[in-house]
Amino acid sequence: MHKICIVGAGRVGESTAQIIAKEELCREVALLDIHEGVPQGIALDIQQSASLLRFDTRVTGDTDPAIMADSDMVIITAGFPRKPGMSRSDVLEANLSIIDGLVDHAVKFAPDAMIMMVTNPVDVLTWRAWQRSGWSRNRVFGQSGALDTARMISFIALETGYSIKDISALVLGGHGDAMVPLPRFTDISGIPIEHFLGTATIEQIAERTRQGGGEILALKKHSSAYDSPAAAIASMVDAIQHNRKRILPCVSILEGEYGQQGIAMGVPAVLDENGLVKIVELKLNASEQKDFDRSADMVRADIRLLP
Amino acid sequence: MHKICIVGAGRVGESTAQIIAKEELCREVALLDIHEGVPQGIALDIQQSASLLRFDTRVTGDTDPAIMADSDMVIITAGFPRKPGMSRSDVLEANLSIIDGLVDHAVKFAPDAMIMMVTNPVDVLTWRAWQRSGWSRNRVFGQSGALDTARMISFIALETGYSIKDISALVLGGHGDAMVPLPRFTDISGIPIEHFLGTATIEQIAERTRQGGGEILALKKHSSAYDSPAAAIASMVDAIQHNRKRILPCVSILEGEYGQQGIAMGVPAVLDENGLVKIVELKLNASEQKDFDRSADMVRADIRLLP
Amino acid sequence: MHKICIVGAGRVGESTAQIIAKEELCREVALLDIHEGVPQGIALDIQQSASLLRFDTRVTGDTDPAIMADSDMVIITAGFPRKPGMSRSDVLEANLSIIDGLVDHAVKFAPDAMIMMVTNPVDVLTWRAWQRSGWSRNRVFGQSGALDTARMISFIALETGYSIKDISALVLGGHGDAMVPLPRFTDISGIPIEHFLGTATIEQIAERTRQGGGEILALKKHSSAYDSPAAAIASMVDAIQHNRKRILPCVSILEGEYGQQGIAMGVPAVLDENGLVKIVELKLNASEQKDFDRSADMVRADIRLLP
Amino acid sequence: MHKICIVGAGRVGESTAQIIAKEELCREVALLDIHEGVPQGIALDIQQSASLLRFDTRVTGDTDPAIMADSDMVIITAGFPRKPGMSRSDVLEANLSIIDGLVDHAVKFAPDAMIMMVTNPVDVLTWRAWQRSGWSRNRVFGQSGALDTARMISFIALETGYSIKDISALVLGGHGDAMVPLPRFTDISGIPIEHFLGTATIEQIAERTRQGGGEILALKKHSSAYDSPAAAIASMVDAIQHNRKRILPCVSILEGEYGQQGIAMGVPAVLDENGLVKIVELKLNASEQKDFDRSADMVRADIRLLP
Repeated sequence: MHKICIVGAGRVGESTAQIIAKEELCREVALLDIHEGVPQGIALDIQQSASLLRFDTRVTGDTDPAIMADSDMVIITAGFPRKPGMSRSDVLEANLSIIDGLVDHAVKFAPDAMIMMVTNPVDVLTWRAWQRSGWSRNRVFGQSGALDTARMISFIALETGYSIKDISALVLGGHGDAMVPLPRFTDISGIPIEHFLGTATIEQIAERTRQGGGEILALKKHSSAYDSPAAAIASMVDAIQHNRKRILPCVSILEGEYGQQGIAMGVPAVLDENGLVKIVELKLNASEQKDFDRSADMVRADIRLLP
Repeated sequence: MHKICIVGAGRVGESTAQIIAKEELCREVALLDIHEGVPQGIALDIQQSASLLRFDTRVTGDTDPAIMADSDMVIITAGFPRKPGMSRSDVLEANLSIIDGLVDHAVKFAPDAMIMMVTNPVDVLTWRAWQRSGWSRNRVFGQSGALDTARMISFIALETGYSIKDISALVLGGHGDAMVPLPRFTDISGIPIEHFLGTATIEQIAERTRQGGGEILALKKHSSAYDSPAAAIASMVDAIQHNRKRILPCVSILEGEYGQQGIAMGVPAVLDENGLVKIVELKLNASEQKDFDRSADMVRADIRLLP
Repeated sequence: MHKICIVGAGRVGESTAQIIAKEELCREVALLDIHEGVPQGIALDIQQSASLLRFDTRVTGDTDPAIMADSDMVIITAGFPRKPGMSRSDVLEANLSIIDGLVDHAVKFAPDAMIMMVTNPVDVLTWRAWQRSGWSRNRVFGQSGALDTARMISFIALETGYSIKDISALVLGGHGDAMVPLPRFTDISGIPIEHFLGTATIEQIAERTRQGGGEILALKKHSSAYDSPAAAIASMVDAIQHNRKRILPCVSILEGEYGQQGIAMGVPAVLDENGLVKIVELKLNASEQKDFDRSADMVRADIRLLP
Repeated sequence: MHKICIVGAGRVGESTAQIIAKEELCREVALLDIHEGVPQGIALDIQQSASLLRFDTRVTGDTDPAIMADSDMVIITAGFPRKPGMSRSDVLEANLSIIDGLVDHAVKFAPDAMIMMVTNPVDVLTWRAWQRSGWSRNRVFGQSGALDTARMISFIALETGYSIKDISALVLGGHGDAMVPLPRFTDISGIPIEHFLGTATIEQIAERTRQGGGEILALKKHSSAYDSPAAAIASMVDAIQHNRKRILPCVSILEGEYGQQGIAMGVPAVLDENGLVKIVELKLNASEQKDFDRSADMVRADIRLLP
């Protein structure tokens, strides 16, 4: 890709820009934020690390949405976090108008781009962006499962002591409480996780994964996670940039897969240079399907809140 | 590790030196070979790529076994390849005296090192090196399954089109015809391989894996494979150097595991800074166990040829 | 190195931890901060990026200085930034007590470590840490010139369009206004910078380098630079970890070099596994020496403020 | 770049393919060689290292020149090495017909490609390829100075003990005896090399650089250098692929620069996505210019031998 525009120069946006620049996943990273000076300052700070981290990526920042122009990808991290006292619909309402505006800018300035949604609630906002843009589903998708899976892997590594290089896991469903970790699709060097850990421990890890974001927030108090979300976003960008055909859990528009439609949810999908080109439909067992359906119900309830 | 000695400056040894130097898996790579000038010339050639590939590893070469001195690891790639007309015992006999001498040098010059055997027949020679050195089994092991597994992964990637980053596989048993690829422990992003490929195709891939080395030799005619063997060796060195606790198939001395003893065979093992510290014992099904036992019989037959 | 303790889990400390973990420059990164939950939360966030960024480094966090125990290096980023209305001596006084306490902890918990000072004013605080620890100067040094140099390189790259891979620069002196960029030691692929840029442009770049930190702060308003400082710190850690004998400008205790003693200042120094093992003494011309001496006077004035 | 065709599956071609594949500098590496089976076998061997070295590049091989089709770059390493008893004109004559045929294939199958010449004598063959193709000079250039410079850097690193990360050097002129190392443009972290080494040592390093290829051949006897040549080629490909605008010494068609025309010689040039887009013309002193002119005379004599 030539140019990637990251919207929102908060911690997630910034850390994402840093990784993408360092890995040279495009020629130019453009940061867009509404706070004058912030995207410019962050862009310059990252640019100044170029000789140390050995990259020639150009990093720019601006408050003018025109900086999106000709981007090959627009990554949306902007929005309000959920704060104490806010209901779920309060957050959705607050972020909806932001996202609507940004999608309109993308359609205007970067009509051939892909949109990767990161802002929460990511499932419903991915759905919204897809509808509002009118683009095909391969070009509008969201990040959640790549992060959830990375968290589950880190917990397995901490518990077993084995290298993250050999651990494979899979987490489906909506982001948050209704996430569906799948121990049945989790292994170390191809060996099922049950060989290494007992059922109770596996269930604890699954539950800790579901609460992964909350655990970080409870510790840091004034800030959510951003190192691992940024790395998760970058892994999706890498798959697209290098046309890898990786299978990663992504927030995908479902058109009948998994018995669902009219919804966006986390399912394994194939990422290549054309974006999210295929959904991998697993045969879930009864228990997994039940969890998945419950997760779908929660996302669908959110979608119904949309104006 | 401070120093790694690679014995045999043929193609495998050289390519291994190049990767280890570039990845800075130790401070000094020492090449030992019997052909005067060759290890020195190759060492210098690799050293001259340092500024281009960005490494500060020192690369040296000599024909004097004293270059092994104080090595933390001795990787043995020296020996004769099997040529037309040579029986299996001919090759074993030819390489046995070479390996015996090298093990003696290692015991003398690098008494605290680990030995990684690469020379074929690797199973029986690993066994021999372990016996002759008198060292504990965590310090004497061989490479075969890391390569066999990498081959199986490459065939799956070529067949499915999916990224090697998501494919996990496992190959046990002796190196060569009696190798035991395990499709049951093979997956893409945690999803069993059967989801993506039919039984016949999977069996073809398993068979092609068994014949992996032969296929390359048949094509190249005057040379065996060495790019992928070198990368396989380096992946084991990396696991040890970074204390990763990776689970990789290694030629391991079995002391009752898998119902076998008095033998060295490819089984999944844990590699960390102390070498091969644990064998992972899988529950094989009847068919897999039968293949494994057959493979063990073949290795045992070779061991019985030892003087 | 086995363990590196980063003191201060603010943005610089965190970004440093992220790079060191990802580059696997040690086995364990320990974050120490006084805000309960923050170092733990950040450590966990970074740890959760491990499978995405492919590292096995362990990242931990605590508010108990005992987490320093057995560190091979202590990187001090903790302290107050200078705020509007604070005099230079106000900042020094505020940070002095923090640094004194941390140096005492290092002496107690990590008596064989190196200390890398990052907190500002870095020159005088490096001096203080050296005096208070009683350690030899190879084990107590500070970061400033690596960052200043990286900034100068980025400005040259932006101005000329050439790759950062080919640009070399050098900045000496105290960190801040009295910094001494040296265009005479600046080149692209060995070709003096004057070949590419006019005198006026070079002087503008030198001046922009001197104001580098201020430019970022003026843009971001609520936060200083941290991406490039973290990368600069990591480049020094890398040189030490890999025993590179790199020549990097470092805040060094001067014992007669450059005609100075009783002072810590930015000069080119050799970094290897034993820390800052040698100072490279350049023959400055009259103008350069004058700037250097002026810079030394400013640092010395700060040192005189120490109780 | 999408596709790079490497012509000649000898050691240089193979090692180049390995680096380009691993660094993912294009999507497909195609090896072309006249020995049936060899390019296919080598391609498969490299492909099988993919999961170990973590790349998704496709590597293919064939004896049919049609494999060049749609390449973005054709790297020519094919040809005969100079053997005892062969005159300079013998080698040129032998390789000329090979190169002519390959250039014709490139013009036919890859009309939009760049050609990078590696086969010796590289200066005259680059000239020939440029003339025969009829392409503009930005698309036809050769490798020699990147390797010569890397050799000089390695000698400086070995002599001083300093890191290759900080050493910059420059070598101009024809490849071989008439090469012109330029100590005046050689430094460590921007500090002139004279600061570190005496005149006699510098001249020894320059002379050893001139004889760099011969030293390796004399040691290895049956094989020339290929690890460092391959790394040098890859560094040029990297500059082009990532549009870096690096300044590297390249065999360039001169059109008046350095007072020369009707010739191809090693001079510093800018490489970006359009190939060799600019020649950097240094102001040589009298002694340097004399050496350069002598080198030009030798290349011109070779060019006159062309039919």
